[in-house]
Amino acid sequence: MTASSELVIGDPPTVASAGEHALIARIRARLPQPPDWLIAGPGDDAAIVAPVRNELQVVTTDACVEGVHFDRRFVPPSAAGHRAMAMNLSDLAAMGAEPRYALLSLLLPDALPLGDFDAILDGLLGEAARHQMPVAGGNITRSPGPLVIDVTAAGTVRPRRFLTRAGARAGDLVFVSGTIGAARAGLEMCRAGGGSAAADPAGPASRYLRPDARVRLGLLLGRRQAATACIDLSDGLADGARQLAHASALGIEIDAAALPIDAETRRWFESRGQDPVAAAVAGGDDYELLFTVSPKRAGRLRGVERLARGLALTRIGRMQKEPGVTLRREDGRVEDMPGGYEHFWR
Amino acid sequence: MTASSELVIGDPPTVASAGEHALIARIRARLPQPPDWLIAGPGDDAAIVAPVRNELQVVTTDACVEGVHFDRRFVPPSAAGHRAMAMNLSDLAAMGAEPRYALLSLLLPDALPLGDFDAILDGLLGEAARHQMPVAGGNITRSPGPLVIDVTAAGTVRPRRFLTRAGARAGDLVFVSGTIGAARAGLEMCRAGGGSAAADPAGPASRYLRPDARVRLGLLLGRRQAATACIDLSDGLADGARQLAHASALGIEIDAAALPIDAETRRWFESRGQDPVAAAVAGGDDYELLFTVSPKRAGRLRGVERLARGLALTRIGRMQKEPGVTLRREDGRVEDMPGGYEHFWR
Repeated sequence: MTASSELVIGDPPTVASAGEHALIARIRARLPQPPDWLIAGPGDDAAIVAPVRNELQVVTTDACVEGVHFDRRFVPPSAAGHRAMAMNLSDLAAMGAEPRYALLSLLLPDALPLGDFDAILDGLLGEAARHQMPVAGGNITRSPGPLVIDVTAAGTVRPRRFLTRAGARAGDLVFVSGTIGAARAGLEMCRAGGGSAAADPAGPASRYLRPDARVRLGLLLGRRQAATACIDLSDGLADGARQLAHASALGIEIDAAALPIDAETRRWFESRGQDPVAAAVAGGDDYELLFTVSPKRAGRLRGVERLARGLALTRIGRMQKEPGVTLRREDGRVEDMPGGYEHFWR
Repeated sequence: MTASSELVIGDPPTVASAGEHALIARIRARLPQPPDWLIAGPGDDAAIVAPVRNELQVVTTDACVEGVHFDRRFVPPSAAGHRAMAMNLSDLAAMGAEPRYALLSLLLPDALPLGDFDAILDGLLGEAARHQMPVAGGNITRSPGPLVIDVTAAGTVRPRRFLTRAGARAGDLVFVSGTIGAARAGLEMCRAGGGSAAADPAGPASRYLRPDARVRLGLLLGRRQAATACIDLSDGLADGARQLAHASALGIEIDAAALPIDAETRRWFESRGQDPVAAAVAGGDDYELLFTVSPKRAGRLRGVERLARGLALTRIGRMQKEPGVTLRREDGRVEDMPGGYEHFWR
């Protein structure tokens, strides 16, 4: 046995050793039977999808970049794939759209082990399948730098049933789904070396590694015309509130005492000497929905809540005419929302 | 004046100094008035487009990566943007689709000068505008490595008027548009330090730097049902012929003497001691269309040619039952098509 053949046996196969055609074959082998409306799927110059009558199409693209959005030292490849798909599903959810199909654009470092490539696919395709969203095509290329998972997702929504950031009116109530800050706490736990932290499927680390896009909630809010505006919290509540206020040409006052921050997340921030409220509103990766509801339509929201399968919807503030986003503290002080307007660029 | 303010004055502003919101504002400022069917464009969680009745939608994504697809030392930023958009338009062309809208996903190194960012936009948006294809949204993120311009393009096509790689039949004639090999020669000229080579708008360097996607030809071939199969030559004629043959479960014999290789390209390869035919068929980035035509429909192809605004359509071979792609040399020898099946992964 020569030294070079020992090398081949000892090292795991990489994406560069497999080549593009073999990688595409690995993707196709993992795809379920495509639906009828996918006329041409992966393998041609482009995918062909049949339009859905009397529906609008909603499209989004979001990249998950190694070294910017995730660190391979503590984010397993399957979680990187899961997160990239969930980021895009969350954008569809924020528009009230039903997921239809996705395209993948993968930038792969030569030395990426084939096993990691397969695990990334498991994360991507598992999350897509959970939302009945077939992968209709994509592109694979070498990366001379980081691993990049770029996803484009398309959904549909009926006319006058979509949600944008711009529809809020003064006096509307502001709600948020689930809890906030857990993803940031989870990221900090992972960074601090928490292999055990990641093992708890309901803990903060899992909220960071395997976020759950609020697709069903977005659909319910749009179909029942319960919300006047909606945004997802990919960049955190402070940023989301500012974006929604700006798009609606209004201001928002958030009630700090009402913010849904789970006990483990609160304890984590306190143990690090951080103000839990300031840390939670500035933390990204929550993928919850922030939305506004006309006080006259509170009944519709109760109907949504009944169908939301236990997902909490918490009233946290109110839209107001004066521009700017403020935070009312428990002692009655009103301060500017923490976190700079130019949120961390990523 | 302090040293640090001199630094600010002396150094050009970078994308990192501008921040994400300013970069998005620069994109929006460059966008023309959106069409009516773009219900929500850049600025929300996703874009909303109105479906077109009785048409199929064709979608594609392709990334242009620094260090893999282009070298910033000799590819100006505007050409990088132009190429990224043209790559995707070419995929729509190969399906016979009419361009409708594009999404941008930009990965930007921190030190990228703002002037380069603007020039990339000029290339991207100029090429999109030339094909009446609005940019409906996208995403900007930091890159810790290369500059990446990832584009998703969507088009529409009427049912039974689309083109795939799979429709060719034995005996069909094989055609190629324009000329082949010029982009490879142009890339070699640029690498060899040809600032002057790039100045000739009709020369090989321009064919590499600013390719012209054959959108009109693809539309004509599909609408008139003139072609049975079609593929674009993004990875070169040898690769394209293999992909088309494989998808159609047939073989192809290409006539070397018929290959349209312009004189300047031929001379360049000869001056480098390369066989011009082997170099031209293996060279990527041509963005011409390779398509097949039933002999009974040659009349339809003449109609297409009249409307193709001077674009040459050259018959270069024939589909055959025996699998494999062969090249018939001028002396009658028949050899396997040069270029490995696993084309250079990029």
